[in-house]
Amino acid sequence: MLNQHYRDMLGRKSVIRELSEYAGRRAAEVGAENVYDFTLGNPSVPAPDSFRDSCIRELMTRDPVQLHGYSPSLGIPEVNEKVAASLNRRFGMHYTAGHIFTATGAAGALAHALRAVTKPGDRVLVPAPYFPEYGPYIEGTGAQMQAVPARFEDFQINLEKMAGMLTADVAAVLINSPNNPSGAVYSEETLRQLAQLLEDGQKKFGHAIFLISDEPYREIVFDGKTVPYTAHFYNNTITCYSFSKSLSIPGERIGYVAVNPACEDAELIVPVCGQISRGIGHNCPSSLIMRAMADNADCTADLHVYETNMNLLYDTFRKLGFDVVRPGGTFYIMPRALEKDSVSFCRKAMAHDLIFVPADGFGAPGWFRVAYCLPTGKVERSLGVIENFVKTEYGK
Amino acid sequence: MLNQHYRDMLGRKSVIRELSEYAGRRAAEVGAENVYDFTLGNPSVPAPDSFRDSCIRELMTRDPVQLHGYSPSLGIPEVNEKVAASLNRRFGMHYTAGHIFTATGAAGALAHALRAVTKPGDRVLVPAPYFPEYGPYIEGTGAQMQAVPARFEDFQINLEKMAGMLTADVAAVLINSPNNPSGAVYSEETLRQLAQLLEDGQKKFGHAIFLISDEPYREIVFDGKTVPYTAHFYNNTITCYSFSKSLSIPGERIGYVAVNPACEDAELIVPVCGQISRGIGHNCPSSLIMRAMADNADCTADLHVYETNMNLLYDTFRKLGFDVVRPGGTFYIMPRALEKDSVSFCRKAMAHDLIFVPADGFGAPGWFRVAYCLPTGKVERSLGVIENFVKTEYGK
Repeated sequence: MLNQHYRDMLGRKSVIRELSEYAGRRAAEVGAENVYDFTLGNPSVPAPDSFRDSCIRELMTRDPVQLHGYSPSLGIPEVNEKVAASLNRRFGMHYTAGHIFTATGAAGALAHALRAVTKPGDRVLVPAPYFPEYGPYIEGTGAQMQAVPARFEDFQINLEKMAGMLTADVAAVLINSPNNPSGAVYSEETLRQLAQLLEDGQKKFGHAIFLISDEPYREIVFDGKTVPYTAHFYNNTITCYSFSKSLSIPGERIGYVAVNPACEDAELIVPVCGQISRGIGHNCPSSLIMRAMADNADCTADLHVYETNMNLLYDTFRKLGFDVVRPGGTFYIMPRALEKDSVSFCRKAMAHDLIFVPADGFGAPGWFRVAYCLPTGKVERSLGVIENFVKTEYGK
Repeated sequence: MLNQHYRDMLGRKSVIRELSEYAGRRAAEVGAENVYDFTLGNPSVPAPDSFRDSCIRELMTRDPVQLHGYSPSLGIPEVNEKVAASLNRRFGMHYTAGHIFTATGAAGALAHALRAVTKPGDRVLVPAPYFPEYGPYIEGTGAQMQAVPARFEDFQINLEKMAGMLTADVAAVLINSPNNPSGAVYSEETLRQLAQLLEDGQKKFGHAIFLISDEPYREIVFDGKTVPYTAHFYNNTITCYSFSKSLSIPGERIGYVAVNPACEDAELIVPVCGQISRGIGHNCPSSLIMRAMADNADCTADLHVYETNMNLLYDTFRKLGFDVVRPGGTFYIMPRALEKDSVSFCRKAMAHDLIFVPADGFGAPGWFRVAYCLPTGKVERSLGVIENFVKTEYGK
């Protein structure tokens, strides 16, 4: 018989996916140019030419038996070295190849990091708002996710609430900055206070509390700023990264786990990830893609369109009186709906061919997420539609 | 703290890997040409040019936003269609795209298939000899592996022993033909009798018993024969495949689950696999590699070297009086050691720079595995070394 647990999951379909499917059907009816699909976080800019060139160079010049052969279970040493060198150069870290575990995107990186530092029954605290897939990611390990209520005024971490939830069975805290869905970048002050809280907890409970820092949007940051590097603030930090957004290659499934050299058991965590792979059927990302990634670890796609789009939408939402925090990065913005029930709000927007996602599933009930990885022309055309929707439905 | 279960796994290092590492160190001492490393099942022939050409064509001609974008969670429809069409053409099946789930090699395919049809506590029967990684693959799901003792005279399935082990808590049987490590190809007669046994079990226990058929060596078969297609014999068959060996691209991590359309809940299994992916961090193989694979689904690397090597080794082992079954496929042969303790036998061989793997971990204690994915010239040079080893150590 089919496994009932997974069968039941089929019944609880993703709201994002349902809305996106609706948008697809609607586009077929009225033309794609007339449907403003703000649902999916699918990068809209091409990968840099250098990524394609690296792939082709590998295919043309490397012995295919070597290029396409099995990778060692802990990854290709020169790939891991290049990733470590890139992080050291850019963030002043001291990673060696042995601190890097290449993984199939952030999903794969989190699957390994979570299993490495939790056991079934442990709790993992996740500040809201959060990426809804963290639920299945954490539950798939046997641990339990517990959401820390959001701090709605600026979408920094609600540290007061977190302090009250930090009990002896908390093995890890999972954060995501720049944040999906809010676009908030956690400040140095936030990270410093979070580190203090976790260090106090470690002393109190007598065991390590790992900070798993999910950073796929690290390179999409606005106003010429950079994102504070979490591992600088707290020793027991495990960084999970994906090149999906920075290189615009989400389909290639490539990212890594980077273990802070100052971490407890730092030299053991990557070998432990190698063991975890055996049970979950991972065994390294594509060898071709790993090599092409390593040559482009310092590089990004042309990401400026996301900031342009953010400013257009932020200004419009402000002008229309929305309660909204200006994103510091990502390609998301999350205003508060104009009525208490964000599902009702998003349904009314759908009637205007504006497809927004209620943020209830992200731990922010009453708010909605707008993914603006779209051509700027389309975002520009959407602004009048948004104005008209708000005027028609809410008389503003 | 690090998860103790995975930490303990680190202590139990793979014998194959240890031996292969020894072979590497020894090669550094005496020269790679003087060490006969028969440990690893790493394909020795290049991928077909058509695979490289497909990769380059995709990179040069397809819009990078589409090529490298997220794949749908159940895979790229045209890729699944091409895989289904290839299987239908070659094996007279009636798969549609909805029966195919692309996965990261056979390891990924098995991770999904096993989770789809078992729940924690269920038992999975595996006929010996078997690939040792089946242990962690099955245990990683929460189910228990139970080995069916080998039939040493021909390495077909020991159906008599299996019949005695088929109890109500057996959710699945996992078979591998052509078989790693024995090289045996399960005959039509074996598969027919296995199907009868499982059908009787289904009736008796009133629930489905799934047959998971792991077929990565399906295209490496000798004497001009073909491998009987398991799904023809038993309705509840889930086929797991990898292109690692047929296309010589193990590092690219590409394969699939193919659900027999006659299977119970056939239309549900692929969607269930999609849900399983969320918990284990999978989310599709590389999109570039999927597309290149789909164009080469009917194609193979030039695989004839394996048969040449098999014949050289089989004849030599026979001549030297080894108890050995002639492989019908794969790039493995598994003779019986010349003393009861195969570890002692392999240690003595190591002193002659012949690196064999004791098959105790494959469920065949007293036998040893020889992986002959090597250039034929090297295999030829090894024959005299094997003769000399046997003469010196065993006086034959």
